[in-house]
Amino acid sequence: MGGMRDIGALLERFGEGKTAAAARLITILEEGGDGAERVMDTIFARTSGAYRIGFTGPPGAGKSTLVYRLAKLFRQKEHEIGIIAVDPTSPFSGGALLGDRIRMQKLSEDPKIFVRSLASRGSLGGISNCTDEVADLLDAFGKDLIIIETVGVGQSELEIAEKSHTVVVILVPESGDGIQAMKAGLMEIGDIFVMNKADHPDAVLAAREIENSLRLKDIPEGNWQPPVLLTSALEETGMEDVIREIENHRRWLEERDLFEEKRRLILRSRVRDAFMDKLERKLWHDSSITRILESRIGEVYDGRLSPYRMVEELERLVTVE
Amino acid sequence: MGGMRDIGALLERFGEGKTAAAARLITILEEGGDGAERVMDTIFARTSGAYRIGFTGPPGAGKSTLVYRLAKLFRQKEHEIGIIAVDPTSPFSGGALLGDRIRMQKLSEDPKIFVRSLASRGSLGGISNCTDEVADLLDAFGKDLIIIETVGVGQSELEIAEKSHTVVVILVPESGDGIQAMKAGLMEIGDIFVMNKADHPDAVLAAREIENSLRLKDIPEGNWQPPVLLTSALEETGMEDVIREIENHRRWLEERDLFEEKRRLILRSRVRDAFMDKLERKLWHDSSITRILESRIGEVYDGRLSPYRMVEELERLVTVE
Repeated sequence: MGGMRDIGALLERFGEGKTAAAARLITILEEGGDGAERVMDTIFARTSGAYRIGFTGPPGAGKSTLVYRLAKLFRQKEHEIGIIAVDPTSPFSGGALLGDRIRMQKLSEDPKIFVRSLASRGSLGGISNCTDEVADLLDAFGKDLIIIETVGVGQSELEIAEKSHTVVVILVPESGDGIQAMKAGLMEIGDIFVMNKADHPDAVLAAREIENSLRLKDIPEGNWQPPVLLTSALEETGMEDVIREIENHRRWLEERDLFEEKRRLILRSRVRDAFMDKLERKLWHDSSITRILESRIGEVYDGRLSPYRMVEELERLVTVE
Repeated sequence: MGGMRDIGALLERFGEGKTAAAARLITILEEGGDGAERVMDTIFARTSGAYRIGFTGPPGAGKSTLVYRLAKLFRQKEHEIGIIAVDPTSPFSGGALLGDRIRMQKLSEDPKIFVRSLASRGSLGGISNCTDEVADLLDAFGKDLIIIETVGVGQSELEIAEKSHTVVVILVPESGDGIQAMKAGLMEIGDIFVMNKADHPDAVLAAREIENSLRLKDIPEGNWQPPVLLTSALEETGMEDVIREIENHRRWLEERDLFEEKRRLILRSRVRDAFMDKLERKLWHDSSITRILESRIGEVYDGRLSPYRMVEELERLVTVE
C-alpha cells in the first residue's frame, strides 16, 4: 500500500488532479510515518496558502448542514472547496442521520469539492493529528478554500483557532446549561457567531445574549468585532449573511497583512505540534528512558520516589545541543 | 504567596489536617512550577493509594447531582471523600444552576468531604494538568475515596480512564444525535453505566440500547462485565445500586490484584504526561530551538522547507543519553 514506489505514482496522479489519488494520499497521511513524510515533502511546496475556515460548536448545533449550504454557495462564487470533518457527530463521519449523510455524499459528487472525514485523536472531539497535513494536501490539490468542521468541545476549540484564518462558531438557542457553559470557551475564539435554528422562539434572545457577552469582552476599537448572525441551515435562511461576514473577515485580515501573519502562526503551531509528537514517540521508545522508567516506577509506586523526581531523572537524559 | 517558607508552614498545617492549608496547597499545585514540585515531593510519600472513581458523561446528564447523592451515601459508610470537578458545566465550578451550587456548598460543610473544582486545560472538557497532583494531595490529606468528575467529551474520556480505578459513565435518554455519537467513546471506558433520569419515558429503551452495545463488544468471559443501571439523581432512586456496583467493581479488581495494577498504570501515565509537559516547556524556551525556529520558519512559510524537515532539524538537536 504505502510503498515508496506507489507513493511516487500516487503523487504523479495527484499532480494530474486525480481525486482517487488524493484520497489514497490522505490515507497515507493518516497512517503517518515515513510514507506521510514523503508525501508532505512533495506536497508542501505546492501549497499556495488556501483560505482556511473553521466551523465549530456543540454537537447538534447544525454545523454540518450549515457547511453543506455554505459549500454550495461558495461553489457559485467559483471557489474550489476542501472539507475536512473532524467531528464524530458529523454526517461526513457517519455520525448523524441518513438524510444528512446522503446530502453530504451529493456534495462530494461535485469534482470541485473534496470531502473527507478524519478520525479524531481521542475517540471524539480532539482534532486529528493530521488535520494540518490533509489541509495542505487539499491546498496543493487546488482547493482555495478549506473548511474544517470540528465539534466545539474539549481542547479542540483552541486547536481550531490555531489552524484557521476565520473561525465560525455555531450555537443554537435550545442548548441547555451544559452548552451554556461551553460557550465560555467558544466565545474566545469566534470571529463570527451564528445562532442557528432562527425559527426557535428563543433565537433572538439567545443571539442578544451572545452580543452582550461580546460587548462585555470590550474588544478594543480597531480590532475585529465579531458579528452575531441568525440563520436556519435547514430553512436555508441567513446563509448569504454568513458568506458575507466570512468575506468581510478575510478582507479585514488582508487589509492589515494579518492574513499572511495568520498563516505564519498556523505553520508555527504545527511545527511545534509535530515536533512534540515525534519527540514523544522517539523518547517513549528510547531504551534508556524505558529502562529507567521500568526499573524505578516501583519506587514511585511505593511512595519512595515522587513522580516529579522521576520526571527530573528522565529529563536529565535529554539534552539540547 | 508561594514562597518556599510559606509552603513549609502550609505543609505543616496540612499535616495537622487543616482544610484551609489543603486549599492553599492546591492553588500552589495549580500554579505549577517549583512550588508545586516542593509540595508534591512532601506529599507524595504520604499518599496511601486512595480509591479513585471517575464520573463522566455528556453535559447535562446530571453528573454533579449524582456525585452529590453518592457522596452523601459514601459518607454514611465512613468514607472520607475528596471530590475534584474538572467540568466547566459542573455546579462546583459555577457552571450550573444556583440551586445546584448551594447543594454542593452544603456538601463541603462536612469536614470529611473536600470539594474542589479545577480549571480544565482547554477552556472546557480537557482534564486539568494538575488533576493527578490534587488527587494525591487529597489522598495524603486522608481521603480514602477520590471522585473525579469530568464532562465526557474531547479527549477527557480517555484521560479519566487512565486516572481512575472505576469509571462510571452517566448518560440520559433524551440525548440527541450528537450525544449518541459521543457514546461511542464513552462505551469504551465505562466500568459502570448509569442511565440517569429514569423517569423519562425512553429510559428503559435507552438502557437496553447500551446493554446491546455492550453485548456487541463481546467482552471475554472472566473480564468485568459492565452493568447498566437506571437512576434518577433528582428523585434519588437507584443510588444504592450505583454504590453497590462501584463496590463490586472494586472487589473484582482487588480479587485479581488489578487494583494495585491500576494504580501502577495511573502512575505510569502521569509520569509520562508530566515528563512531556516539562520537556515541551523546556524545549520551547531553549535558545537553540527557538533560534532555529525563528530563523527558518520563513522558509517553511515560503514553501522552501517542509514542516517535516523543519521538525527533523529540531529533533536532531535533541539527544538522549
